[in-house]
Amino acid sequence: MHRRCRRRAAARRLTGVLNNMISVDVCQNGNSVSREVEVGRISDLLRQRHKLLWVDVDAPDDETWRVLQEEFDFHPLAIEDARKQNQRPKVDEYPNCLFISLREWTGPQHATDDLTDVTREIDVFVGKNYLVTVHHSSSKAIEEIRKRWEAHPERIEATPGALLHILLDTIVDGYFPAMDAIDGEIDEVESAIYGNGREVVDLAPVLGLKKRLLLLRQTVAPLRDVLNHLLRVDNPFLTAHNRAYYMDVFDHVLRLTDQIDIHRDILGGVMDAIMAQTNNRLNNVMKTLTVISTILMTASLIAGIYGMNFKNMPELNDPNGYYKALLMMVLSAVALIFFFRRVRWL
Amino acid sequence: MHRRCRRRAAARRLTGVLNNMISVDVCQNGNSVSREVEVGRISDLLRQRHKLLWVDVDAPDDETWRVLQEEFDFHPLAIEDARKQNQRPKVDEYPNCLFISLREWTGPQHATDDLTDVTREIDVFVGKNYLVTVHHSSSKAIEEIRKRWEAHPERIEATPGALLHILLDTIVDGYFPAMDAIDGEIDEVESAIYGNGREVVDLAPVLGLKKRLLLLRQTVAPLRDVLNHLLRVDNPFLTAHNRAYYMDVFDHVLRLTDQIDIHRDILGGVMDAIMAQTNNRLNNVMKTLTVISTILMTASLIAGIYGMNFKNMPELNDPNGYYKALLMMVLSAVALIFFFRRVRWL
Amino acid sequence: MHRRCRRRAAARRLTGVLNNMISVDVCQNGNSVSREVEVGRISDLLRQRHKLLWVDVDAPDDETWRVLQEEFDFHPLAIEDARKQNQRPKVDEYPNCLFISLREWTGPQHATDDLTDVTREIDVFVGKNYLVTVHHSSSKAIEEIRKRWEAHPERIEATPGALLHILLDTIVDGYFPAMDAIDGEIDEVESAIYGNGREVVDLAPVLGLKKRLLLLRQTVAPLRDVLNHLLRVDNPFLTAHNRAYYMDVFDHVLRLTDQIDIHRDILGGVMDAIMAQTNNRLNNVMKTLTVISTILMTASLIAGIYGMNFKNMPELNDPNGYYKALLMMVLSAVALIFFFRRVRWL
Amino acid sequence: MHRRCRRRAAARRLTGVLNNMISVDVCQNGNSVSREVEVGRISDLLRQRHKLLWVDVDAPDDETWRVLQEEFDFHPLAIEDARKQNQRPKVDEYPNCLFISLREWTGPQHATDDLTDVTREIDVFVGKNYLVTVHHSSSKAIEEIRKRWEAHPERIEATPGALLHILLDTIVDGYFPAMDAIDGEIDEVESAIYGNGREVVDLAPVLGLKKRLLLLRQTVAPLRDVLNHLLRVDNPFLTAHNRAYYMDVFDHVLRLTDQIDIHRDILGGVMDAIMAQTNNRLNNVMKTLTVISTILMTASLIAGIYGMNFKNMPELNDPNGYYKALLMMVLSAVALIFFFRRVRWL
Amino acid sequence: MHRRCRRRAAARRLTGVLNNMISVDVCQNGNSVSREVEVGRISDLLRQRHKLLWVDVDAPDDETWRVLQEEFDFHPLAIEDARKQNQRPKVDEYPNCLFISLREWTGPQHATDDLTDVTREIDVFVGKNYLVTVHHSSSKAIEEIRKRWEAHPERIEATPGALLHILLDTIVDGYFPAMDAIDGEIDEVESAIYGNGREVVDLAPVLGLKKRLLLLRQTVAPLRDVLNHLLRVDNPFLTAHNRAYYMDVFDHVLRLTDQIDIHRDILGGVMDAIMAQTNNRLNNVMKTLTVISTILMTASLIAGIYGMNFKNMPELNDPNGYYKALLMMVLSAVALIFFFRRVRWL
Repeated sequence: MHRRCRRRAAARRLTGVLNNMISVDVCQNGNSVSREVEVGRISDLLRQRHKLLWVDVDAPDDETWRVLQEEFDFHPLAIEDARKQNQRPKVDEYPNCLFISLREWTGPQHATDDLTDVTREIDVFVGKNYLVTVHHSSSKAIEEIRKRWEAHPERIEATPGALLHILLDTIVDGYFPAMDAIDGEIDEVESAIYGNGREVVDLAPVLGLKKRLLLLRQTVAPLRDVLNHLLRVDNPFLTAHNRAYYMDVFDHVLRLTDQIDIHRDILGGVMDAIMAQTNNRLNNVMKTLTVISTILMTASLIAGIYGMNFKNMPELNDPNGYYKALLMMVLSAVALIFFFRRVRWL
Repeated sequence: MHRRCRRRAAARRLTGVLNNMISVDVCQNGNSVSREVEVGRISDLLRQRHKLLWVDVDAPDDETWRVLQEEFDFHPLAIEDARKQNQRPKVDEYPNCLFISLREWTGPQHATDDLTDVTREIDVFVGKNYLVTVHHSSSKAIEEIRKRWEAHPERIEATPGALLHILLDTIVDGYFPAMDAIDGEIDEVESAIYGNGREVVDLAPVLGLKKRLLLLRQTVAPLRDVLNHLLRVDNPFLTAHNRAYYMDVFDHVLRLTDQIDIHRDILGGVMDAIMAQTNNRLNNVMKTLTVISTILMTASLIAGIYGMNFKNMPELNDPNGYYKALLMMVLSAVALIFFFRRVRWL
Repeated sequence: MHRRCRRRAAARRLTGVLNNMISVDVCQNGNSVSREVEVGRISDLLRQRHKLLWVDVDAPDDETWRVLQEEFDFHPLAIEDARKQNQRPKVDEYPNCLFISLREWTGPQHATDDLTDVTREIDVFVGKNYLVTVHHSSSKAIEEIRKRWEAHPERIEATPGALLHILLDTIVDGYFPAMDAIDGEIDEVESAIYGNGREVVDLAPVLGLKKRLLLLRQTVAPLRDVLNHLLRVDNPFLTAHNRAYYMDVFDHVLRLTDQIDIHRDILGGVMDAIMAQTNNRLNNVMKTLTVISTILMTASLIAGIYGMNFKNMPELNDPNGYYKALLMMVLSAVALIFFFRRVRWL
Repeated sequence: MHRRCRRRAAARRLTGVLNNMISVDVCQNGNSVSREVEVGRISDLLRQRHKLLWVDVDAPDDETWRVLQEEFDFHPLAIEDARKQNQRPKVDEYPNCLFISLREWTGPQHATDDLTDVTREIDVFVGKNYLVTVHHSSSKAIEEIRKRWEAHPERIEATPGALLHILLDTIVDGYFPAMDAIDGEIDEVESAIYGNGREVVDLAPVLGLKKRLLLLRQTVAPLRDVLNHLLRVDNPFLTAHNRAYYMDVFDHVLRLTDQIDIHRDILGGVMDAIMAQTNNRLNNVMKTLTVISTILMTASLIAGIYGMNFKNMPELNDPNGYYKALLMMVLSAVALIFFFRRVRWL
Repeated sequence: MHRRCRRRAAARRLTGVLNNMISVDVCQNGNSVSREVEVGRISDLLRQRHKLLWVDVDAPDDETWRVLQEEFDFHPLAIEDARKQNQRPKVDEYPNCLFISLREWTGPQHATDDLTDVTREIDVFVGKNYLVTVHHSSSKAIEEIRKRWEAHPERIEATPGALLHILLDTIVDGYFPAMDAIDGEIDEVESAIYGNGREVVDLAPVLGLKKRLLLLRQTVAPLRDVLNHLLRVDNPFLTAHNRAYYMDVFDHVLRLTDQIDIHRDILGGVMDAIMAQTNNRLNNVMKTLTVISTILMTASLIAGIYGMNFKNMPELNDPNGYYKALLMMVLSAVALIFFFRRVRWL
């Protein structure tokens, strides 16, 4: 008893500071009761089963984490995972709650970007009647929950399942624009290759695209596992009613992974095409060199022959000899061009 | 009660508009009862279990969707999936019905075509005694159902399983012509490569073929999953009687995926052959360049030697020196050609 | 009753025509009873459980199919599959019988052959006391059954399992010569590559081999599935006694698939070797070109220098200048050859 | 009885020698009781179930192994595995204990290093109330256990699970620096490739990186299997309480394998880029050769023409003929450069 | 009865001949009873359950096989498999015994060797109290069993499990030297590639190594399946006591397959390196050609210019003109070399 009192007193003192970072929303029977909840009262509210709490934490510091752990009694490992901020999406089951780590796509992204640069981690703790979301900068998915909560508080059910669905749905749908951007760029590269054989297509952007697909897959694949886990395991918040909604998000993730695989295959083809193009171009360069060399060397040979110093060279005395020699050069050039045309080297 | 009356009145008003888009066929004891059914009466007919309803909806607008949902009580997510029109083939189970999204092959197709350009989505809702098909332009599969329904209404059983089988069968068989077209083109490319070594085989059409195979696989693979799911799960419409028919469609899909994989492997070989051909050609170009250079440079060297200005060069005073020099050039050329023939460079 | 009478009368009329295509063998207690069975009596014989019927049908026409269906009451889909003749090997379970589609290797085969050109379909219907085999040209596997039936009728048990085993065994063993032929050709290609570096190894036969392996795998892989299915599922004809024989055939198929995979890997290595060889050859061609050019151009330069028209060029007046110049050319050539030898270009 | 006495006497004699290699820690009710335990007393202590023994063995010799086997009654195969020191990470279940072989990353490493050079084997025997660790040189993971044991003996529970967790956690976390080093080097290679097209990127370091990833994967993949096994199987030391901690280590291993796979894919892209770069460079070299040859040969041809010895060559008598010829050479060079610029060869 | 008498009489007559090929060892209560057993008494001994028989057959002929089948009552298929001698390692379960086909590594081996050249088949029949080993030339594994049997007959238990373990252990360990040889050769190739860039690394030995790895994998992979099968299935000879020993052999096989996969990956990298090296070398050859051509052609052009026959060429009359021209040639060469150095072509 004494310990709780002390704790609550401390929490009250902190309220001023913490309320910047922690926002607490309470919902009872479909009515958004209040946002002006003191952080220290959370553990009391949690014991009132008919109420739903949504606690959103923005960029928590050590003090905030301490309070959170005290109020919710989270497992130390879950806290540690949420603090580390470079988790792959995953679900961990703890006796009193579910810890879910998600990654929201942020973009824009460059070829050399790392996974942590293009995505933002959102950690979620889900209990029977609460949802705690932790993030480190403003997040679209969190704003989406806020928006829907304020617009239709009557739709929020007494389980946190609906809130979690909004979060997952927004995060998954957020990957599609990134996918579409890649889609468009691949189309551009493809039309550059197949369209006109003139332009040299650079391999660098293709490899950049390939790496972005790798990064996308690195987050989307474990996200699929997370949803698969949520659907398979008995969860307190997965009711018969909202199961279809979770299936829907799962379908979207499957579509994403499908598209990523297809695009990887297409990029493989594009790279083969570029290689083949480079080889063809080399062939053409060599043919050009051969044609030019042959023509010029033949003419030079003729000039060389008439530059010999033999005493007896009848042509040299021919008044038109010079012009005949020039004509021979031109004719040999024409004949060679004609020949190379026939063997399709020109 | 009051709500239903209002709903039915609204539906009656809409009948004129909706009947353009919605066609309702009723079958009772193997007799096609009527096509002139008011849309608003659907929910009444559904309660008569011994009747089979087939509702076909062509390019529905918002109003149509509202009526459909009211009459059939579909899940909002199923409605949403059917409206979005870019689903991968899938099956979703809902308490009162099964939602199946399919893709019919339409063709013709180009290398840069997207999946949505070469296929048409057909969405299906299957219940105990009804089948609702939704499509956005005239579909061969739907016409096939219509044709068989009108020709042999007595064959239509009281479950929608037979109708769904016609739909699946027609859609799956529709992929075979696309497959055959690709088959033929691959044969052409192959005979171009292995037949005569002269012609340069372009990589572009090969890559186009590869991409079309990718697109085919992108629809056929989930189609296989759909059929696998239908066969595995207990469905109200999958009777012991028509199970063999579904197995048959499943076999066809397996043959399709088999062929796609084989063709991908063959195309891989074709691309290797083209690469090797390009390399061989480069080798030949370089050999030609070497042979020509050697011959011409040797002749030029001879000419150069006799173009030197030394005072004492006995050959220069030889009356036949000039002709002997020319003969040397010719002989050296012949000797070189003979030599290059021996080392198989010519 | 009336219907059966009519059917039998029709069948009797057809006997003369059908017996060309249908041969019916009956075995009772290990004695081959008779081959002179009227087609119309089949359904009567089937009801006598202690008899084993083997009905072999060669290139059936529509009429034959009708009779078969009437006598055996086969499922329409099984009939359809057997008529279509381009099935992948498969097993379909029907309530009254098992339908098995097999492919016998026929060969010889060319690189551009299709699967239907190198294999022959044999369709089998297996019931409790009958085996129906359908084929379209003379088949070794069928002849093998006939031979063993006639040689040792006493060995034929009362279940069709032993007959089916002979069929499967002969078909599977028929793939080994094709495999061995490929084996030999790969050995030839390998020794051509690794043996002497002189000869140019063509990629075309390698790709032909690769395609034939693909075709083999396309039939052998589903054959393995067929045997796996037969061994896994409870079949009326798979007794504890002949199970080992089916396991044996299964082992042979596994060995086939193993060898196919190994050969594919070896061919992959061969293709890499050919590519590397082509590249090496290009290197050598370029080195040759460089060496020849350097030698000839150096000699030409010397000739060019002494072809200059300067008034004051002391060497020109040297009586032995000409010979010294020629010596310089030879010496420079020797020096260059010596140099290129040292850097291992020659 | 007699045998035990003899054994204990022998052990007492050995204590002086063995205590260099064997350290025995005993913990009772959260108190580190003593490190000054005679080796021969181990089997007595083991029978006191409420005590936890941690026996750490450094570079054991034959005598040590004999004593260990006598005191703990380990299975001969486990002993043999622990002595051989080139095990892949694995778990073996024996009736009285669990044998776990682990590999700690030591680094630094070179491209040609073997697995045994970059990792150090740590073998663990886990029983109900003891943990035996065997290693051959000073190990960070063992030091970590020692440190935590001494700092907070009260946290050590009565099962060896917590000690094993510290070991696994330290070992797994030890792979991350190696991973990060590879990460950094890949980033360097990537920026070298995509940054400036000038520098030639060598393939050797890329292949070295690839091999190091292979080595990492060779240890990390079986480590994942070990953890998976520990989590799946009922172990005496895996309590409901520390299960989450083992899950956490498992997550870290999964992240490692994820990163290894991603890096392998990225390196594949890098190698393609290097290949493409080499090909492009060859193209450029050939273009340069062609341009230079064409310009010089054209000028030479002009010189050759005016070096002909025809009697009647009007230009030769032109007082400015020489300068005009030189001008022609320059102009032709300029024209050719202009032309090659237009076709983008320069 | 009559049949058995006849059989035994025949066997007695054969003993003289057969004992060359068949050796029979009997073990009772840990004592090696006798090796002088007549072949015809085997079936009697088998009925004495407390005795363990080990029958080793060396290169059996038709007569031997007949006797073996009579004494042991083996299944005809097992006999057939053992006679054919080109089995992949496998286990077949028969009602009265287990048939195991194994392959012992023999080496040495060449690149074009087949699997049958580098391995030797050993077939094993295992029953409740007997082990029959069949081989066709002297085998290390068989000798190992003999050695241990004779050294410690008291260790041989009454089940054939221990004997089979010795056989499996020796065979599996026999693959490690082959593995180590490959390991060493790969190291050599690697150091040749990465060490000095001078030497040309030939692809042929690399492909030979790759093929040997393929051959190794072709035997080791089914060996792993055999052990997995033996461990999974209830076998009469797999007691709780020797299970750990079988697990140990299984671990060794897993390590073998691991190493094979790793080495295949490393060889893949090596082949990429060789390809890249070849391409780099080509680049260097082309650069050399370009540099040499440019220098020589420039000098030739200067010579050509002063070889022109213009009347008015002031330089020609310059007494030092000739030397100045030579100087120009040298200076241009130096300038070009300097230039190519700067662009890193030299």
